[in-house]
Formats: sequence, structure tokens, C-alpha cells
Amino acid sequence: MEILDGKKLAGEIKTQVKFDVENFCKEHRAPMLACILVEGDKASEIYVSSKVRACEECGILSKVVRLSSKITQTELEKAIDNLNKDININAILLQLPLPPHLDSNLAINKISPLKDVDCLTDTNLGSLFSGKNQLAPCTAQGIMKLLNKYKIAIEGKRAVVIGRSLLVGKSVSCLLEQSNATVTICHSKTQNLKSITKDADILVVAIGKAKMITTEFIKEGAVVIDVGINRESGKIYGDVDFENVKEKCSYITPVPGGVGPLTVACLMENTLKLSKRQYEGGTNSYTSC
Amino acid sequence: MEILDGKKLAGEIKTQVKFDVENFCKEHRAPMLACILVEGDKASEIYVSSKVRACEECGILSKVVRLSSKITQTELEKAIDNLNKDININAILLQLPLPPHLDSNLAINKISPLKDVDCLTDTNLGSLFSGKNQLAPCTAQGIMKLLNKYKIAIEGKRAVVIGRSLLVGKSVSCLLEQSNATVTICHSKTQNLKSITKDADILVVAIGKAKMITTEFIKEGAVVIDVGINRESGKIYGDVDFENVKEKCSYITPVPGGVGPLTVACLMENTLKLSKRQYEGGTNSYTSC
Repeated sequence: MEILDGKKLAGEIKTQVKFDVENFCKEHRAPMLACILVEGDKASEIYVSSKVRACEECGILSKVVRLSSKITQTELEKAIDNLNKDININAILLQLPLPPHLDSNLAINKISPLKDVDCLTDTNLGSLFSGKNQLAPCTAQGIMKLLNKYKIAIEGKRAVVIGRSLLVGKSVSCLLEQSNATVTICHSKTQNLKSITKDADILVVAIGKAKMITTEFIKEGAVVIDVGINRESGKIYGDVDFENVKEKCSYITPVPGGVGPLTVACLMENTLKLSKRQYEGGTNSYTSC
Repeated sequence: MEILDGKKLAGEIKTQVKFDVENFCKEHRAPMLACILVEGDKASEIYVSSKVRACEECGILSKVVRLSSKITQTELEKAIDNLNKDININAILLQLPLPPHLDSNLAINKISPLKDVDCLTDTNLGSLFSGKNQLAPCTAQGIMKLLNKYKIAIEGKRAVVIGRSLLVGKSVSCLLEQSNATVTICHSKTQNLKSITKDADILVVAIGKAKMITTEFIKEGAVVIDVGINRESGKIYGDVDFENVKEKCSYITPVPGGVGPLTVACLMENTLKLSKRQYEGGTNSYTSC
């Protein structure tokens, strides 16, 4: 069994982005990422700080737009529109979840697809779905990079994804299918889950339940990717029961240190990618998608 | 075994659309569908005629924009843009395939999402992918209507879709998943296809190979949806070997008379849906998506 070291790969990705940003800055202003943070969610504060820190590591500029938890939908959308129009901003991230009185779908779709660094607007998701692969949500992208880094064969393999969130389950299913895996998406209504996961050469788990996946869900020699981050009495656990499962797998991601760090690293990559594309398309190209 | 009578259901859908269009016309101008037909493909000519005929049946106006097979990409996009701007046109269909010198993806994405009746623009596909389900490609939608008409349970069932085209395979996979099936998409790189299809409670086949699916691919009691239309020596065959398979299924679509007629019926429904939405959003709303 080999550990899929996401932390190490994330470091390599960030080093590469830093190098590419330095080159990019020879001719252009440094890329700038704007993070919109609607106050009131503690985890969001932590996530945004770690994104800002990663920007600093990579030579990417960042700006946190803090908004009151009482902001109206109209005010939020106005704030997004200002960032769309600001030619100094290359990438916009709306930190989720939003307070319940705000409509995150409407807000997300106000982000210009050219600056939508999380790939969550309908236009960018449609482009992902139809296989144009210009951008993908960061976590899904990180998973693919990890598989590629360890030269894990995907074509013709059975991949099973548990969880159907847009950000992870559905997006990674798309990417796995585009790499020619035969993909099954499982979810809360799936019956006989074990009988399905036991066919998986590659199993991606994004459920949000600590240690739910034990050895009887696993095919001998499977590659297991654990996207879960569950906090229990001060410790972090994945969705996979690592100690129980590890000897049955060929490869497995640890939690923490597996998929988590890759999300932020891919965010850096996407920020640079969008900046480059904006320069290629003309600086003021935010409306021309 | 029961036959899933798509032709009959298509008739019912068109009757309903006709009724709804009559009501709609009490307050509004009749909906109008524009079909862009780039000359040179014989099958396309036939398909467009049948769409025009369906419009007549339903009280929907239609306009065929015939373009020379030698048209340039710029000219094609200009033609699309004129239809986008024309407030008399509610729905635009670009008949595919285009001649090889034209880029259909670029052309499709020139269609305003508000008039994109086939649901093929990135924006509308993203909306489908993210489960907003405002619109879906007509064939995928027709398949779901057929399953619903015959009260076939979908939730918790294993669905296997063979074929991953945007118009059919990927889109119907999305809709089946949103109806809480556990969906597997198979394609040319899938290994051991039979072992996968034999788990399918619902099997959707969109491969384009006459009579490829025989009884050894089928689970006893499965629901089989055949999207294939293969012409061989003057006869039309599905992708499923109907005579061989029929006794093993609980339900099966015939070819012709199964999925085929539903595509055009759903096109009529989508045209009306877009017209209604444009009036709700203000007549001149083509830019406001």
C-alpha cells in the first residue's frame, strides 16, 4: 500500500505556480485573487486565511472583501459586480456557505465566467460538463492531479464516486469519465452501496461522515481517495476508516494531508490560469465570455 | 413485457402543447421557432422538415433559415446573432451536424441561452448539470417523460447509460441521477460491458450500432430504452436486438416509435417554455440571461 501524499504534491504545485507567476510578472502585473467573505461562519474565516496565505507563498496578490452577515442579496451582487468590473482583479472566489437568507446560486452566477476561479457558474460548469475542460472546481482538479502524479491508470477502470455535490462528486465524475473511466455516482438514495463500491478500481469518497467506509466496501487493491474532513473532539477524520482499510488498498489518501491541501494549490493554479487568459483575450475582457 | 409507446406519448404531448399554445395566444403572439439549416446533409433536411411539421400541428410558427454549405463561421454566427436579436423569434435550433469547416461548439454558444431550445449552450448545460433543470436536451427529456408516463420507479434503481454524447448519454445520466437513480455511464473504453449492464434496472442504449445489445447484456426484468436509429438496407433498427431481448425485459421501447417521436414533441414543449419565460422576463429579454 502506498500513501498518496497530497501535501507534498500541493507543495510542488505551489512551487511551480510561484515560478510561473514570476515569469508572468516580467510582462504583466501580478495576478490578484479577490475572496468575498460574508461574516459569521468560523470555518470560512479559516479557509479564507489559508487561501490568502497560499497567495502570499505563490506571489499572487489577494484582497479579502469582508461583508456583513446582514448584507442583502442586492448588496452582495453589487459587490460581485464591482469586482467583475475591476480590471485589477483577475479571479473572484465567493466563500461558501452563505447565511441562509442569501441565494448562493444567484450570487455565484453573477461572477463573470472569466473570473470564476472555483468554476461554479453555469457557463463554466457547462463547459466542464461538455468536456472542454478549460477549468474545473479545485478539489476535483486536485484529485485528478494526484492520480496522475502517481501514474494511476484511469482509462477503462471502474470508478465509483460517493457523493454528488457540484464542487466535488459531480465534478470529479465528469473528469474521471473524460479520462475514460467507467464512472458510477452513488448518493444517499443508492441501495446496496457496498455491492457497488466493491467493484471500484478507483473509489472517491465525499460523504461527510467520519470513518464510514470500512474494509467491506473496498475491492482488494483499489485506489481510495478520501475527500472527507470531519472534526470530532479536536481531531480530523476522513470519510474512510484509514487504519481499517489501508492494508486492502493499493493507494490511499491520508486525512489530513491528502486531498485537502490540493484544493488550495489548485486555486492558485486557477488564479494564474484566469490571469493569463484575460491578458490573452485583452485586459478588459470581463464581458467578452 | 410491455412496450413503451413513445409515439403515443409524443401525440399526447403535442396535443397538450397545442392546447397550451392556444391559451398562450389569447394574450401573446404565437411562439416562433427558427431552425438554422446549413445545406448539404440529407438527414438534416428530413429532421428539419419533421420539426416544421410538428410546429404546424401545435400552432407554433416556424422559420427555416437555410444557409449555404459554403458559409463561413463568421457568417453563421452573424445569422445566429440576428435571430438572437429578433424579438419575433422565441427559440433557435441549429441543426447538427455542420459541415466540417464550421465549429459547432462556437456556433452553439452564440445562441442566446434564453432561446437555446436544444439546451446545448454551456450556460444551459451547466444549469442542467447543477440540477436547476430549467431545460434539458429534448431526447433526454423525452426518455424521462416516457419512464414517468409508465410510472417506472427510478429512485434507488441502478441505471446504466451506454453512450456519452452531450445530447443523449450525458444529459439523460444527469436527469436519472437527479431522479435519484444510481447511474453508471459506459462508453467505448468501458471494459466488461456486459457485467455492468447486467446490473441495470434501467438500461439506456445510445451507441449507434444496429442490434448490438442482445439478451446476455440484460438483467431479467430490466427496463430497456433504445435511442439508436440505424438505417440498414432501407429498414430502421435500434441499438437493441428487440426480438432477441424483448421477453427478458419488463418494458422496452420499439424502434421506430419509441424515443424518436418524443424528441420532436419535447422540442415543441421547450419552444413554448422559452416563449413563456421570455414574456415573464419582459419581451426584449434576450440579453438578460
